[in-house]
Amino acid sequence: MRRVYADNNATTAIAPEVLEAMLPFLRERFHNPSSLYAAAGDVTRAIEHARAAVAALVGAAMPGELTFTSGATEANNAALRGAARARPTRRHIVTTAVEHPAVLEVCRDLEREGYDLAVLPVDRGGRLDLRDLVRALRPDTLLVSVMLANNETGVIFPLADVARIARETSPDILVHTDATQALGKIPVDLASLPGVDMLSLSGHKLHAPKGVGALYARRGAAVRPLLIGGHQENGRRAGTENAASIVALGRACELARDHLPHAADVAARRDRLETALRTAIPCLEINGEGAPRLPNTLNLACHYIEGESILNELDSAGICASSGSACTSGSLEPSHVLRAMHVPFTAVHGSVRFSLSRYTDDADVDRIASVFPGIVRALRRISPYWDSAKDAPRPDAPSMTAAAP
Amino acid sequence: MRRVYADNNATTAIAPEVLEAMLPFLRERFHNPSSLYAAAGDVTRAIEHARAAVAALVGAAMPGELTFTSGATEANNAALRGAARARPTRRHIVTTAVEHPAVLEVCRDLEREGYDLAVLPVDRGGRLDLRDLVRALRPDTLLVSVMLANNETGVIFPLADVARIARETSPDILVHTDATQALGKIPVDLASLPGVDMLSLSGHKLHAPKGVGALYARRGAAVRPLLIGGHQENGRRAGTENAASIVALGRACELARDHLPHAADVAARRDRLETALRTAIPCLEINGEGAPRLPNTLNLACHYIEGESILNELDSAGICASSGSACTSGSLEPSHVLRAMHVPFTAVHGSVRFSLSRYTDDADVDRIASVFPGIVRALRRISPYWDSAKDAPRPDAPSMTAAAP
Repeated sequence: MRRVYADNNATTAIAPEVLEAMLPFLRERFHNPSSLYAAAGDVTRAIEHARAAVAALVGAAMPGELTFTSGATEANNAALRGAARARPTRRHIVTTAVEHPAVLEVCRDLEREGYDLAVLPVDRGGRLDLRDLVRALRPDTLLVSVMLANNETGVIFPLADVARIARETSPDILVHTDATQALGKIPVDLASLPGVDMLSLSGHKLHAPKGVGALYARRGAAVRPLLIGGHQENGRRAGTENAASIVALGRACELARDHLPHAADVAARRDRLETALRTAIPCLEINGEGAPRLPNTLNLACHYIEGESILNELDSAGICASSGSACTSGSLEPSHVLRAMHVPFTAVHGSVRFSLSRYTDDADVDRIASVFPGIVRALRRISPYWDSAKDAPRPDAPSMTAAAP
Repeated sequence: MRRVYADNNATTAIAPEVLEAMLPFLRERFHNPSSLYAAAGDVTRAIEHARAAVAALVGAAMPGELTFTSGATEANNAALRGAARARPTRRHIVTTAVEHPAVLEVCRDLEREGYDLAVLPVDRGGRLDLRDLVRALRPDTLLVSVMLANNETGVIFPLADVARIARETSPDILVHTDATQALGKIPVDLASLPGVDMLSLSGHKLHAPKGVGALYARRGAAVRPLLIGGHQENGRRAGTENAASIVALGRACELARDHLPHAADVAARRDRLETALRTAIPCLEINGEGAPRLPNTLNLACHYIEGESILNELDSAGICASSGSACTSGSLEPSHVLRAMHVPFTAVHGSVRFSLSRYTDDADVDRIASVFPGIVRALRRISPYWDSAKDAPRPDAPSMTAAAP
């Protein structure tokens, strides 16, 4: 059976070139970069090469603005906590309802500690209303944290506008963005985003290993380190450097840069899949429709059936996909992102995300397009909701004029 | 030229079996363990297998008491911060002057935030005086953090006594130990250390990769997580699991258990090296002499010369060793450990650490023993201090009755 991996927003396969680059650091080049002998200096140089590659992918002015972390979750925790600790007198934070939990839960934790928190809503298409941001900001706002693109829907946020508005409100407001899902999929250029002070990124979303990421902090941005007790990373993150994975992240960033001009190929496959499924399946909505979206992400609201049942059937057919984000899919709670988007209750449990990568080929798309409609049809046949709904659709359900199930 | 790696307390080579175990998770088994399809479940099972292996090495009652981290620095930060956040009314911390910076600096950070901090001294042999601990403890002490063995000298601390005394003072005092350097070198059995509530460990000190470690927290110990925003690790550490490195750590722990019965072989080689160097080099002290020490560690105080010059010469001779710890060796400050031990100023800058592993063989020891005395001799010949000292030794310098230089 052909196996199709269409869950690249959850994690990606390590690129062969990336594994090749990291292997020497798992073998003979194992030395601690802090040691004084020549072999250790070689490791240090490799780390700095990687830092420059990450800086180039995000358009940082200086490699030294990048600090390697154990992943985006650490980077997000460090960014938010580090900003709060650096400026304890500013007590107001603005974020959005659809952030990754690694941002949202830290914000809520700070709220429990006495911070004022404004959580911006999104509309049915997953879009922010910038007027809400204008209303929420205060001169004493510490931080605005708005993701660059949403992991579940792929909806891209207007980060340049967010940063501009924050800066107009007060030049002292820090702007942080979780770019985990955007990086490698769309161009990110901090040189043209002068109001963005911090950016989090993850290795394993762009064909590097798990367990490595980075936090960009613009030179001069007041941020205190989260992990202390070592001089590494210029005092910004203690702990022996994960050299092999850092080298891997650097190589992955080089490859991502090379790939960016071909992102339209991924978008074309995603669009073809979207059109095929829309044509074949009635009562199907695209979560995030109408908003600018990442080229690789397709989040489908399949009314009247359960996402987990769909995923099981897909798995049996050799297709890996996701309902909600992998980070919360262990729970039975519907996705906080889809709830914030007011996806109707007939679909909030029945959403499925296909996320492609540069390794997804036409045959993968064909396989999903040929298998998925049958799965939806079969599950709806045994769904009590579908049975009544197809005769009397709810007002908030989509039109039923597509092909019969 | 034969190359000798004798800096295993700084970092270790990844064991071939460990690399073999992790490679599938860097290739085809890349799935996010939080995903719902079968391939992801395989990754979860591998992580739980690794957790059981780590638990077995430390003698934990349950694998669930182990939380994987990005390393010992994160584990130490999480242990201390997590204890403080869980019990905000207890405001007193006890630690030692020779802890790793990842413990000591977090303690000092908490002190700046208003905590009372007692830093226990050590004697010339690097030993604690438990009467100091008794005097320092208070009924409202939050936490005692005492390392199991020192990274620079290898001196082993009486952890069972520390835990007993803490518990006798108040059963609510948490006891944390940084076991990073001890694990894999001496038996560690938490089952026979019921008063130890938390233990930090690192992968890359026991032939696993950098970037992975673990924090043991006894069931019921009140600790709040450091990284939040994800359900992973049972809510105790958010972030996509670094599955490949976790699997590697598990395999390394299995190998370390197999190796422990042969630790005497490492000790025999270290002792042979110690005797050979002592015989050949006058004015040489063993830092930590007289104290129980790790079997692999030999820290030499070479009076009247500079450690960095020694290391350069060793490097030229193909031998990797260390002065102070790698974590601080970027700075020109003498080691805080040796200063706390009151190593005389004639030697505090001239200390060199050889740290062996199970891969160190007799030929490695022979090579160091044949090269090192000549290096010391040559450097002393150009040392202004040596010139005057060899005729009129300082009162705090060791006796000069050994073989002439």
